[in-house]
Amino acid sequence: MMIAKSVRRLEGYVPGEQPKARNVVKLNTNENPYPPSPKCAEVLAGFDLDFLRRYPDPDCTELRKALAKLHKTVPERIFVGNGSDEILALCARAFVENDETIASLDPSYSLYKTLAAIRDVPWRGNEIDGKTALFLWTNPNAPTGTLVDKEFVARTAKNFKGVMLVDEAYADFACANCMELATARDNRNIIVMRTFSKSFSLAGLRVGYCVGPKELIDALVKVKDSYNVDAIAQRVALAAVKDAKWMRANVKKVVAERKRTAKRLEAMGWSVVPSESNFVFAKPLAGKKAEEIFKALRARNIFVRWWVAKNVREFLRITIGTPAQMDALFAALEEIAR
Amino acid sequence: MMIAKSVRRLEGYVPGEQPKARNVVKLNTNENPYPPSPKCAEVLAGFDLDFLRRYPDPDCTELRKALAKLHKTVPERIFVGNGSDEILALCARAFVENDETIASLDPSYSLYKTLAAIRDVPWRGNEIDGKTALFLWTNPNAPTGTLVDKEFVARTAKNFKGVMLVDEAYADFACANCMELATARDNRNIIVMRTFSKSFSLAGLRVGYCVGPKELIDALVKVKDSYNVDAIAQRVALAAVKDAKWMRANVKKVVAERKRTAKRLEAMGWSVVPSESNFVFAKPLAGKKAEEIFKALRARNIFVRWWVAKNVREFLRITIGTPAQMDALFAALEEIAR
Repeated sequence: MMIAKSVRRLEGYVPGEQPKARNVVKLNTNENPYPPSPKCAEVLAGFDLDFLRRYPDPDCTELRKALAKLHKTVPERIFVGNGSDEILALCARAFVENDETIASLDPSYSLYKTLAAIRDVPWRGNEIDGKTALFLWTNPNAPTGTLVDKEFVARTAKNFKGVMLVDEAYADFACANCMELATARDNRNIIVMRTFSKSFSLAGLRVGYCVGPKELIDALVKVKDSYNVDAIAQRVALAAVKDAKWMRANVKKVVAERKRTAKRLEAMGWSVVPSESNFVFAKPLAGKKAEEIFKALRARNIFVRWWVAKNVREFLRITIGTPAQMDALFAALEEIAR
Repeated sequence: MMIAKSVRRLEGYVPGEQPKARNVVKLNTNENPYPPSPKCAEVLAGFDLDFLRRYPDPDCTELRKALAKLHKTVPERIFVGNGSDEILALCARAFVENDETIASLDPSYSLYKTLAAIRDVPWRGNEIDGKTALFLWTNPNAPTGTLVDKEFVARTAKNFKGVMLVDEAYADFACANCMELATARDNRNIIVMRTFSKSFSLAGLRVGYCVGPKELIDALVKVKDSYNVDAIAQRVALAAVKDAKWMRANVKKVVAERKRTAKRLEAMGWSVVPSESNFVFAKPLAGKKAEEIFKALRARNIFVRWWVAKNVREFLRITIGTPAQMDALFAALEEIAR
């Protein structure tokens, strides 16, 4: 008794380091280097404390309306969560029985494996078995940045009897996305998830949402906490959606810098996986190992991401920062290479 | 497949109505009638957008430090959640196996029953069976407002092999509480939970926390979402804790008004359950039924809480508002009685 067996076994997810010092070049958790819309600051500056005194709208009515308009669908097909992480946990609860499994691409977002462990069901990598009830498909994928096309996702979903969750955290940085599959009238099992953390520069706000068939959205509503998104987050996210132009301008800068980064790394002899996201996944020139470079960068206060897992340990995942941040990275890499 | 069986069966929790109009007398969801500390507004007005661009501190370090100081304990024994609701859901995951049960007082916070249903385990009311792994003890209780003494809670916990969660949402309005049990060195299974929603007037912010043995707190950390409390909420809650004097002054006003309300209702012939919270649970004079009065008040834009469940349907739960709001209630009740 006391602590559940599956929890005792659990190792827990290790998020990317959040160094407290502010003079670091932070390219390790795929944050946007540009600030969120000034409209967000306006919301905060003029915030009516009465909205804090009272419970928030449990249904995120205004935000869901704005998102429905953005994606040309109806609010009833949209669910808003305390970050995408909450939506993933709720999907694991709403769509998976105790004797079923959760699957995802591998490598992919390393939280998925932990999510299955917390739900106490097996996790399958790159494989749908007869018991798979939920497939988590990050597209563009992380940490690779690779995009697969909509038609392939649609075909796979058609042959799948469970729920296909397409995690489009990075979709705004990509040349295409799967939202049309989610909003389609005859969509049976596809949920497309988005977040305010990346393109909207609001990782600190914790707002994610997903779009899908009404029946699946209703199931998420049933298992959520009553007031899962706070009053401030609802209003700040709404301001960001209404100023989507600001977001798109930032995305444009990040995409340009991503292209420059890939070229520059390739010029240094690195292999760079073609990316449709706000990061690159790249393998250093033979000689220096990824782990060594990761540590040497860290010693210079430049944070990138490296994992010990076999299938990714030869790579670094580098978030795209400002041109100045990337120049600092390139200079450090040249120094390390010498 | 698709939607889990237990979720298909689920009715879902119905939170108290959140009317959108602002000219209502809202005495239905135990919100504080007084605003949060002006220090909270200062945090918002000067908020650095860079804290939104980056992920929040996954460990709520500063807030946990301040709470540890407040309760004379260490941060390692404190867990912060996206409202107490999230902590309850995480406890159901961390401390309960699939073949165990969750129990609580009955009547009590009606969410508990839903929580067990979402976790897909049986719920027991006023009863600990051999399989009960988590007992949720609201103290002061809701909707009754009744307080039981610390010694009784300690004794019950001692004889209980599962986790005893004492939900002290209303403790700041009470003459005593169980926090000492939670911070005690030899505490094995008692978790005391608090919220910023009631005494701190921050229901819209969604911050709750709990205090308990390090082993149990560690288990909650393992099953939580990586970044469960957003960057704004962490800072606003911290400002509120540091200005606890403001909260205590508001609590004093509410407690005085609670006493006046009880006397006034009793003078009208109602039975009022002795309350140590920010609401009263009261039974109208024989003749008019609670449901009728609830509806008649609602027609006058005065919202109180009424439940259809057998053991509480003869009562109304009335949140304590400002003296002016309570006078409006008394006037309406006199009008309805005629």
